[in-house]
Amino acid sequence: MNECAMLHIPDSRYCFATGEKELVLRLRMAREDEKAKVFLIYAKKYDFTFCRKKLPMEIKYSDRLYNYYEIKMRLEDVRFAYIFQIEEDGNTWYFSEDGVTKEYKFEEGFYNFFQMPYINKNDVMDTVDWMRSAVFYQIFVERFRQGNEKKDTSYINMKWDEKPTPKSFAGGDLAGIIEKMDYLKELGINALYLTPVFRSISNHKYDIIDYFTVDPQFGTKEELRQLVKLAHENGIRVVLDAVFNHCSMEMQQFQDVLEKGRESRFYDWFIIDGDFPEPEKMNYECFAACNYMPKLNTANEEVQDFLLEIAIYWIREADIDGWRLDVSDEVSHGFWRRFRKAVKKEKPDSVIIGENWHDAYAYLMGDQYDSIMNYAFTKACLDYFAKGVFSAKDMADKLNSNLMRNTEQVNRMMLNLLDSHDTHRFFTEVNKDKDKMLAAIALEMVFEGAPCLYYGTELCMEGGYDPDSRRGFPWDTKSWDMDFLEKVKELIRIRKQPAVQYGEIKIEEEQEMLHVERMWENSKIILRINMTEEEKKIPKQPEETVLCEDNRFLITITEA
Amino acid sequence: MNECAMLHIPDSRYCFATGEKELVLRLRMAREDEKAKVFLIYAKKYDFTFCRKKLPMEIKYSDRLYNYYEIKMRLEDVRFAYIFQIEEDGNTWYFSEDGVTKEYKFEEGFYNFFQMPYINKNDVMDTVDWMRSAVFYQIFVERFRQGNEKKDTSYINMKWDEKPTPKSFAGGDLAGIIEKMDYLKELGINALYLTPVFRSISNHKYDIIDYFTVDPQFGTKEELRQLVKLAHENGIRVVLDAVFNHCSMEMQQFQDVLEKGRESRFYDWFIIDGDFPEPEKMNYECFAACNYMPKLNTANEEVQDFLLEIAIYWIREADIDGWRLDVSDEVSHGFWRRFRKAVKKEKPDSVIIGENWHDAYAYLMGDQYDSIMNYAFTKACLDYFAKGVFSAKDMADKLNSNLMRNTEQVNRMMLNLLDSHDTHRFFTEVNKDKDKMLAAIALEMVFEGAPCLYYGTELCMEGGYDPDSRRGFPWDTKSWDMDFLEKVKELIRIRKQPAVQYGEIKIEEEQEMLHVERMWENSKIILRINMTEEEKKIPKQPEETVLCEDNRFLITITEA
Repeated sequence: MNECAMLHIPDSRYCFATGEKELVLRLRMAREDEKAKVFLIYAKKYDFTFCRKKLPMEIKYSDRLYNYYEIKMRLEDVRFAYIFQIEEDGNTWYFSEDGVTKEYKFEEGFYNFFQMPYINKNDVMDTVDWMRSAVFYQIFVERFRQGNEKKDTSYINMKWDEKPTPKSFAGGDLAGIIEKMDYLKELGINALYLTPVFRSISNHKYDIIDYFTVDPQFGTKEELRQLVKLAHENGIRVVLDAVFNHCSMEMQQFQDVLEKGRESRFYDWFIIDGDFPEPEKMNYECFAACNYMPKLNTANEEVQDFLLEIAIYWIREADIDGWRLDVSDEVSHGFWRRFRKAVKKEKPDSVIIGENWHDAYAYLMGDQYDSIMNYAFTKACLDYFAKGVFSAKDMADKLNSNLMRNTEQVNRMMLNLLDSHDTHRFFTEVNKDKDKMLAAIALEMVFEGAPCLYYGTELCMEGGYDPDSRRGFPWDTKSWDMDFLEKVKELIRIRKQPAVQYGEIKIEEEQEMLHVERMWENSKIILRINMTEEEKKIPKQPEETVLCEDNRFLITITEA
Repeated sequence: MNECAMLHIPDSRYCFATGEKELVLRLRMAREDEKAKVFLIYAKKYDFTFCRKKLPMEIKYSDRLYNYYEIKMRLEDVRFAYIFQIEEDGNTWYFSEDGVTKEYKFEEGFYNFFQMPYINKNDVMDTVDWMRSAVFYQIFVERFRQGNEKKDTSYINMKWDEKPTPKSFAGGDLAGIIEKMDYLKELGINALYLTPVFRSISNHKYDIIDYFTVDPQFGTKEELRQLVKLAHENGIRVVLDAVFNHCSMEMQQFQDVLEKGRESRFYDWFIIDGDFPEPEKMNYECFAACNYMPKLNTANEEVQDFLLEIAIYWIREADIDGWRLDVSDEVSHGFWRRFRKAVKKEKPDSVIIGENWHDAYAYLMGDQYDSIMNYAFTKACLDYFAKGVFSAKDMADKLNSNLMRNTEQVNRMMLNLLDSHDTHRFFTEVNKDKDKMLAAIALEMVFEGAPCLYYGTELCMEGGYDPDSRRGFPWDTKSWDMDFLEKVKELIRIRKQPAVQYGEIKIEEEQEMLHVERMWENSKIILRINMTEEEKKIPKQPEETVLCEDNRFLITITEA
């Protein structure tokens, strides 16, 4: 037995409450030990010495190196003590806080059993219910649709269908989104993520001058209210972009510091090395290396108060349904803890989605965000669908491995994306192969978490890295591939199946194909993807009914 | 190479800031791979593709299965990206968020390098400075000393030197501690941890009726103030016991609920299954199975406010230096987060020590407690010094393994104890073997963290489990073993050596002896312990000067 592989961490992604009386336990073992029988030995904490129970555990996830055993317990007493027992080749081992031992002294367990000491209601992370069936649509506002023809258009400096440059303005606005709400509803999406809409001189508006004003190029506060209201009437939620890591150097507080230096009451709102910030010297912390985007000092409680006010203001003013958090990994944990409390208090079913491109577990333990933009999913999809460096087995391993980074609740709220305004377009990455593109969207729709389509994905929009991935939406229907669009709509509908919303997931490779299964009550949905060079008929069992199919995938349902 | 053993978790005990510009990184590898060469490849996050540096990493800790490589970095830019490179048997591997690979695409690193995205000042955990040299002395107040002879003594029902029963009262009080402050100062300890002192009907007072009143058996608020003042004048800090998991059923809020049931405004202060709490039915949550200690609902913000008021009240009123938290693992994380903020704001150098008998990492990430009562240390000492089930190698492995559960800051603030009011006395566990007892105290004094002597340890007090471990302190000096007492004093002095306060620690087995080394600047302190059956001279090098020695240990210092 490869003892070195065994991992269990109490009160973590390996042991977490999914309700006040419900606990999930995971144990990691080496894949080579898959013949081992694994049991959970458990009791109420205060009974552990005298009176224990035993349950077998099953492998629920597997990656290249490990199998992950998982069990979900309904508890009466939430003071829960446990160890694991492993049987292999006629040997028995015990795994406790003291590691693997041939013998285990239960009477000394109070020193070294694993435990969930107690489940306090306020520590249980809730799954935002609407996220279970959410299909997001990310809109880069400047490029989706110009709705207001009467506005001052003097800033517009590109034709709608031209290739954009970093400083292009095409004229997209909130009125355009309002105008196209029917299109969005028709598409089937039920959540919008809008890139920033507050006052800023750039086209992307990630350098904000005034967080309390909608940028006049995009519209007015009233239009934002209308947009959200109309969206809600159409069953669509709206999530805005919170750029709290940094601001524009034009923001009045930074301007005050530029003028007064240390004498400014806002000096400590930034992180400055010297008496004055000097843009040409870059003697203050910035986003990346952009001196025009000074970093906000989110360790400062005054800055925290300011940002919390913004977060609450737009929930109250416009009734938005959550925030996507820009560069959230560089913002302080302490701030996000306050942010979660404030936002969830104001609107309990709002969602908080961080922009962390890496393992974000330290932010996803229930006290900070709900989930992140799942760029690890993006990377896996690139390797499998676009670059061909992953076999179906590699892909199954990777997806399982990624799921094991977080709790069930977080996985169910993940924003799974193929691309965004910060990447190449996925359609460009798959070399305009529509079959591959649809297969990837199929995976997004069946996978655990909320899929997020970047605007125009449904119409095979192309584009390389920023600014090319931010082209104007092709509203001329003559250019549309209607078959493709219809297929996307079919796939979006599958996301709303109960088995996808609530079901467990099983991911494995079968006959060189990726096999993703969702099971809930009596129904089972299976997605099979063939990314091999070989054109082959994707197999299905007689009892399965086809929900959607295409050259590279097949989705079926079985109702028992 | 045993890939399964490799572990690194970003933004965790494997990657943590020890200052605004200082980062510690740890990598776990299989012990069998100790010939591997391990390197850190790193860069500023935004430079990772183009411009990286490389540093070798060294093994700092080893346990039975693993070696832990550690490196401390001084950073200019705290947006830090890194991966590990391993060379073994002519092969090179890379270890990133995507696991072990033979090749690594640095240009795609933004998807899968490890990172410390940014170090925000407010997220850095500070080491409470006085904890570096703290030697605690735990006093079970009822049994240390009766100082007030004038009080109503009608409650006293045992002779001072009798064996106590669960309901014995011997008369110990705060005046007794004040009276014996010289003794404590002379002993050399510089921190007191007092078991609860608030109004309660029991001798242990863990069932509190009124948190704002000192129990009249123990004294008055004024005496508590005097005690702390006198202690401070003698360089001694005072930590009180916060019993926030539960209270006495006599507490007025619970009484109100007993009377009014759901109509009581305190109904939600407790966790009750029914309209009224019914003690004989135990239809409410309690401590353990004690119906007279109802659990406080620490998920309730009103309860949180009440408990925070208590925490702050005694800092303000009596100037105490911190809190030990009773049954802290059953209290909500959310509450401890508020508690830390409030307490540290009121008195920044106060210490917060939880009572978690198990791996408490989920509470020790910088947002909740500073440390815990280190019962894992207790267990290791029992196995090594008392039960003889650990060899020196086993002990070295276990101590190293325990250190790797937490960050450096937490380890330096751990409350390392051999026994307490909740265990057998260690002297009884070692079968009254004074040599073993002294060796264990020697380890406590040289180990990382703050040693805590249970009252009377210095005089070889005996006792089995509660109530026997809570006997009256033997004030008759005729019974004292002066040699033993002097040796304990010598050992306590060693704790204050700079190498012990600030030094790195190295723990290993050498010639069947336990070898603990502390290094700081030019000085090195070495503790060697011989727990074998063989009586042998403990070796030392010519350049070493003896600081303290006894039959089973030797402590030396070398100043370079």
